[in-house]
Amino acid sequence: MTAPSPQLVFDTLLAYQRSAALVTAIELDLFRAIADGPGDAASLGRQCGASERGTRILCDYLTVIGLLDKADGHYRNTPTSALFLDSQSPAYMGQGARFLCHAQLREPFQHLTEIVRTGRTVLPDHGTARVDNPSWVEFARSMTGITGPSAAPMAEMVLEGCSGPLRVLDIAAGHGLFGIAIAKRNPEARIVALDSAEVLAVARENAQREGVGDRYEELPGDAFEVDFKGPYDIVLLTNFLHHFDPPTCTVLLRKIRAAMRPGGTLAALDFVPNDDRVSPPPAASFSLVMLATTEAGDAYTLRELEAMYRASAFDHVAARTVPTGPGTVVTGRAV
Amino acid sequence: MTAPSPQLVFDTLLAYQRSAALVTAIELDLFRAIADGPGDAASLGRQCGASERGTRILCDYLTVIGLLDKADGHYRNTPTSALFLDSQSPAYMGQGARFLCHAQLREPFQHLTEIVRTGRTVLPDHGTARVDNPSWVEFARSMTGITGPSAAPMAEMVLEGCSGPLRVLDIAAGHGLFGIAIAKRNPEARIVALDSAEVLAVARENAQREGVGDRYEELPGDAFEVDFKGPYDIVLLTNFLHHFDPPTCTVLLRKIRAAMRPGGTLAALDFVPNDDRVSPPPAASFSLVMLATTEAGDAYTLRELEAMYRASAFDHVAARTVPTGPGTVVTGRAV
Repeated sequence: MTAPSPQLVFDTLLAYQRSAALVTAIELDLFRAIADGPGDAASLGRQCGASERGTRILCDYLTVIGLLDKADGHYRNTPTSALFLDSQSPAYMGQGARFLCHAQLREPFQHLTEIVRTGRTVLPDHGTARVDNPSWVEFARSMTGITGPSAAPMAEMVLEGCSGPLRVLDIAAGHGLFGIAIAKRNPEARIVALDSAEVLAVARENAQREGVGDRYEELPGDAFEVDFKGPYDIVLLTNFLHHFDPPTCTVLLRKIRAAMRPGGTLAALDFVPNDDRVSPPPAASFSLVMLATTEAGDAYTLRELEAMYRASAFDHVAARTVPTGPGTVVTGRAV
Repeated sequence: MTAPSPQLVFDTLLAYQRSAALVTAIELDLFRAIADGPGDAASLGRQCGASERGTRILCDYLTVIGLLDKADGHYRNTPTSALFLDSQSPAYMGQGARFLCHAQLREPFQHLTEIVRTGRTVLPDHGTARVDNPSWVEFARSMTGITGPSAAPMAEMVLEGCSGPLRVLDIAAGHGLFGIAIAKRNPEARIVALDSAEVLAVARENAQREGVGDRYEELPGDAFEVDFKGPYDIVLLTNFLHHFDPPTCTVLLRKIRAAMRPGGTLAALDFVPNDDRVSPPPAASFSLVMLATTEAGDAYTLRELEAMYRASAFDHVAARTVPTGPGTVVTGRAV
């Protein structure tokens, strides 16, 4: 039993300031300036085009919340900020801040009390689940650094024991990196990427940059409505099921099953909390985002996902966590 | 050296959701409903007039961030939430959420990049430092539960070695509890409370409720302009100096000194970081609030405050932390 702490209440009420401070530091490219040195507030202010007062107070705050170190009036990146927040790092996550702190994602949290009362988002038109929601283009452009690191491990998992020609459907492709990772590992894989036409333009750019553009086909539309043009050996369903309620998910899974070869693999990547729904923290806390931004979405437990899979004629349901992100890959075999 | 963690970056970017979840739980009086039991989402939803879906997801999220416990689908208050967030607890802090998450306090954080660039608030008219800023009435009404617990310990510190008739000036009185605490401990103390007329109405209510209304006088106005009507034995300056730059603070301290009897005590309550300006966290992180909401305010170190005191003819400068809050009482003796 922990002693009561008013500080936890203060910290929670004021937590919005943490988000704001980090977004500002990313916008100023502060972590890059710190890596360049010399790291005192006056120099950093000049490097970032910012006032010395503002820079000093921002850097002190970032030190307090553990994103910088400070000694003798000079700031240094922590291992975390050097790897993920320096814009020259290959693992840079700064672009993702634009999505995670996107006004459209933040706005519903200003109305969270009404949302909890009614049990559904205040956003119009089914919230973020709409395929033509303009924020998905932003998502596709900005989330490469955040969801991208899961693409390679997911491809390894999905391709295990598979070789030769494969036809792959990548539903809600977004930046396309999940399908592209498969195409890069299997030179005979052909990818059909499904998303809105605007988002697919981003995926196509990425496919061409990664040298798999000649095996990359676009299928613009809504996953619930468009003809999938199967059959497929592999279907990817990344960060998608959580937008819908279980009956809707099951409708989609049945449609997917009907477009697959028997024995083919469906692989969803999703936030999968334990049965207690309060662990592990990243997956469990994701439910609140779905409450705020969708009509009836949720982070589903493996038990719930397995029930949806089985009801849609998938068996051999298995889950593996992705070491590089908060996601879990849930595979099923088309019966 | 800690291993790099993308989770810290995610958690920081999404921290605004923590503030929103707690504000909503306070608005729904959820912690009271949980104390009443039985604590399952369906019952809590009925008790709070909220949907079961929204209530479950909110309670799970509050569990993830450490403000609830969950077992077998039933939620319980933690020691912290039972003491500070149950609206029937004498230490309830929920009203303070209205100030700490007040739209006027949050709004500048949406423009923090511009603020760091320019080094000053985007709020008009000197930001929150304006005496007639309407949020100070909200502050006076709502912060009793948050700053109030510091009033009794501060009164003990200030009255140490003092007895008999005392004339006390309480600058920026707000809810008035600091002056009232002195009046309650010394039956011969007379309090002059200075703030805007609207805020003083709140202080007067509190003084009457606490039975010291007959020794409570109101002095409406701006501390920089109004005639203090000294001499005073004790001057209280609680949570005020941080709104201004050191030269402005010194102007005020000299005006205060001129209204005091030699040997009298000036006692400021403030957020006082260590010389490193990044510890302790509650005091150090407060600078960012002053950056966001004032022209030139800051959380001052003891060394900086001592320099201002000495330049204004105070000596015997001493600092003592308040056990019940993040503040430090800095006393000085009028030379």
